[in-house]
Amino acid sequence: MTYKNLDQCTAFAKLSQCDPVQIQQVLDAKRIKSFLVSAGGGLAYQYAAMPIGKDHLDLMQELSDELGLIEKYHAVVNGEVMNTGEKRLVLHHLTRGKVGKDVVADGEDKFSFYQQQLEKIKRFSDDVRNGAILGSTGKRFNTVVQIGIGGSDLGPRALYLALKGWCEEQQVETLDAQFISNVDPDDAQAVISRLDLERTLFILVSKSGTTLETLTNRDLVLEAIKASNISGIDADKHMVAVTSKTSPLASSSSMLDAFFIDDYIGGRYSSTSAVGGVILSLAFGFEVFNDLLAGAHEADLLALNTKVTENAALLDALIGVYLRNVLSCPTTAILPYSQALSRFPAHLQQLDMESNGKQVNRDGQALSYPTGPVIFGEPGTNGQHSFYQLLHQGTDIIPLQFIGFSESQYLKDVVVEDSTSQTKLNANLVAQIVAFAQGKDDSNPNKRFPGGRPSSLLFAKRLDARTLGALLSHYENKVMFQGFVWNLNSFDQEGVQLGKVLATKVLNGCEGDEVLKAYSQLF
Amino acid sequence: MTYKNLDQCTAFAKLSQCDPVQIQQVLDAKRIKSFLVSAGGGLAYQYAAMPIGKDHLDLMQELSDELGLIEKYHAVVNGEVMNTGEKRLVLHHLTRGKVGKDVVADGEDKFSFYQQQLEKIKRFSDDVRNGAILGSTGKRFNTVVQIGIGGSDLGPRALYLALKGWCEEQQVETLDAQFISNVDPDDAQAVISRLDLERTLFILVSKSGTTLETLTNRDLVLEAIKASNISGIDADKHMVAVTSKTSPLASSSSMLDAFFIDDYIGGRYSSTSAVGGVILSLAFGFEVFNDLLAGAHEADLLALNTKVTENAALLDALIGVYLRNVLSCPTTAILPYSQALSRFPAHLQQLDMESNGKQVNRDGQALSYPTGPVIFGEPGTNGQHSFYQLLHQGTDIIPLQFIGFSESQYLKDVVVEDSTSQTKLNANLVAQIVAFAQGKDDSNPNKRFPGGRPSSLLFAKRLDARTLGALLSHYENKVMFQGFVWNLNSFDQEGVQLGKVLATKVLNGCEGDEVLKAYSQLF
Repeated sequence: MTYKNLDQCTAFAKLSQCDPVQIQQVLDAKRIKSFLVSAGGGLAYQYAAMPIGKDHLDLMQELSDELGLIEKYHAVVNGEVMNTGEKRLVLHHLTRGKVGKDVVADGEDKFSFYQQQLEKIKRFSDDVRNGAILGSTGKRFNTVVQIGIGGSDLGPRALYLALKGWCEEQQVETLDAQFISNVDPDDAQAVISRLDLERTLFILVSKSGTTLETLTNRDLVLEAIKASNISGIDADKHMVAVTSKTSPLASSSSMLDAFFIDDYIGGRYSSTSAVGGVILSLAFGFEVFNDLLAGAHEADLLALNTKVTENAALLDALIGVYLRNVLSCPTTAILPYSQALSRFPAHLQQLDMESNGKQVNRDGQALSYPTGPVIFGEPGTNGQHSFYQLLHQGTDIIPLQFIGFSESQYLKDVVVEDSTSQTKLNANLVAQIVAFAQGKDDSNPNKRFPGGRPSSLLFAKRLDARTLGALLSHYENKVMFQGFVWNLNSFDQEGVQLGKVLATKVLNGCEGDEVLKAYSQLF
Repeated sequence: MTYKNLDQCTAFAKLSQCDPVQIQQVLDAKRIKSFLVSAGGGLAYQYAAMPIGKDHLDLMQELSDELGLIEKYHAVVNGEVMNTGEKRLVLHHLTRGKVGKDVVADGEDKFSFYQQQLEKIKRFSDDVRNGAILGSTGKRFNTVVQIGIGGSDLGPRALYLALKGWCEEQQVETLDAQFISNVDPDDAQAVISRLDLERTLFILVSKSGTTLETLTNRDLVLEAIKASNISGIDADKHMVAVTSKTSPLASSSSMLDAFFIDDYIGGRYSSTSAVGGVILSLAFGFEVFNDLLAGAHEADLLALNTKVTENAALLDALIGVYLRNVLSCPTTAILPYSQALSRFPAHLQQLDMESNGKQVNRDGQALSYPTGPVIFGEPGTNGQHSFYQLLHQGTDIIPLQFIGFSESQYLKDVVVEDSTSQTKLNANLVAQIVAFAQGKDDSNPNKRFPGGRPSSLLFAKRLDARTLGALLSHYENKVMFQGFVWNLNSFDQEGVQLGKVLATKVLNGCEGDEVLKAYSQLF
């Protein structure tokens, strides 16, 4: 397999010379219908409002072939050491199905290992949901609280919120889910003060079993249980762990049970492992989580296609590279037209920025071109009344990724002025894509819209578990492909280390570091 | 008063030639203690880790004087027509106290008008909170729901969340507050399905009384009340309006009461008007809201200081301009180390991007330099486990604005490994500032931190109502000063219009527009 930096690629040199098309001039009904590709799980990727044409697509194909992007994806799913920084395999795809060859590591078949965890999650969540497992005072659990941070928090939280309305409408019995993540004690306190502790099950999530924030918040919970003075309550019967087999939590006697992940699942890629599986199966039942896995697996398989125009994740990745490295756009906005996806942009912010916010290549050599962009976003139509002003009329071009669905989740709606809210929502979505693309001239320059602002659209009939799985996989694979293009390692995060070291130094009294001490004295 | 574009300024030409200082080399205890200025309300602004020195500060003073920034602020508070696009006064400062001369408009003294509304809010919120006003079935209200979008939603929501923990710890009796904003029917449904309607008071917020999203969500609420079949419930007795005197809602008989704002308070600047006042006074009592106003007013007065190094909002604004227009940074991250400020970055995103995301000057002429940056952020320590990787080791420099407090809100904490969570939280905050500023060399390039990443810090003892008011005012005034520097109008938002027009066209069947029709057919 060839690894080379993007600025050494023949195809990229050609792509750099390929001027953007003027979206205003080319956008028509034919293009809207044809610049479209399935992304799995009922999801489609639409890129008619991107500043590219056939020449760009041909060169992106050349680039993908020259860099062997699909070959590299095969290397991931076949269990090669693709996390070069930490010298680890990268196996999150395997948590939702087999995409490549059998992978054996640590003396075990990894697919079987993940399947065993899934079976265990199914049994446990069934038992909790049907009352075979009760709280220590004999009451049924009605609330689950995930204690975790980063990948153990953002992904599961975004997915929980994304499916809640749909499950309620489907009359799936749901347990309420809450999350505690921040080391700020107010985060835990705000959640704990509203809990019925006898009916709450806590899920402690830490791969290493040593994450400072998570263990501290566990102790805040234990204090609260103790302080509640509830007769007969036994904290050990209200807590399970999601951790690695070798962590101190794995065999702790103060846990009701433990579910395992391993070093081959990065935190930000762990939503389809036990990290997302335990809480989502408890909240909505195992079948809902299993549907999500099926949708993600479907999208994983589509991402094997070597043809750029038939591979949504690959195409999205390459268009992103064109915007970032040829058109020099430093940011990307994620704009879901679904309130259920309110925290999905925060998850993608981690997924993308922690994976590709790097300045060295996979061999540790400095890169001379921009890598991962800043990712931000809020649901539409809310964003329209907020930061869209800058997107329309600001001095910088911000590429946009819209997400939309034909139907709402609750299917409860009202007709006002001859249309439902859902119809209005999507009318706004369509209007925005066209407004950004086409703009509008005006004799008053303050009312002029320059247009030519690129956007793509991921859409489906409805946001159910399968579609959500595909949406998650789409972005994971997009980020992976972009990492390949930039020739960096998307799977480590050395950038988080220095802060940890210095925080420990502060807690130990600054050890004579005058700068740390002076800052500490402000508080 | 002189108005000129930034690229016509002598002082800016000089500032552009002034190289950044190397933060790594200059950061020491003395600088940390001296690069500090009060921001009012117990808040201080600290900028030791910004790449500037005495030369920059002198040139910023020259720039401020040359452009008459304080003179322009006087023009705002003295009631000149500073919203040039819409030809309106800009009076949000007056909602929290008098900063300038008496302002008479529409035949009334505006300070008296805002005071009258405050008195009305006090009476009404007292009556609801002490049970003199009951729900239509005779029960006391325990929940308030704000129906509004954009400025009627983001600011009040951020402030409500920011004060909840503090009020609970102070044993202030609190009413639960909820918010419905998105036209997505799932947003309303998720809120409504959890309400005890007999005990809920709705606040309908729309200046014009015609905002599509807001009226549609009002109707969803009315449908739900009707469908509840609660005996004797009368929706009219469960809803108040916050609107302008001339709006259709002002005199509606289907409202329990109405509170007034006017055209001189922009949505994103309305948190200290009745838009924020009604819900915050209902939720926490009028005194808490009044403390917030006092803190904001205090900061407003400090912002009159012509001396750059003694005016936190002005200095923050000018440093931001240096980062944006000299060092070419396109984004800024807002990083509050307080879970209570979880939605504060979303409010600032609107405040900043909608105000200064403009490409024409106040006279409608095209600008040739970058204006407002992209604003994004999440609370620390959560962000540390998410997007900080890119901030530390990405290819772009992202300026950072940290916010921190010595004490937590709930004051409930636990000692783990010899320190409380609050101590750990601030140890992390301090560690991050220093890690970003100083970086760290390493023989392994993947573990290398380049440093030189600029940050500032707003900090106070505790996040109470007064401090929060000052924090809000600080950012409002910062954004205002930056708008003056860029010579644009920060107070209109023409960029939201085209989307509205096209959405209406879609709802009317696209009127033969093939592009709109083709997009609509995807849904």
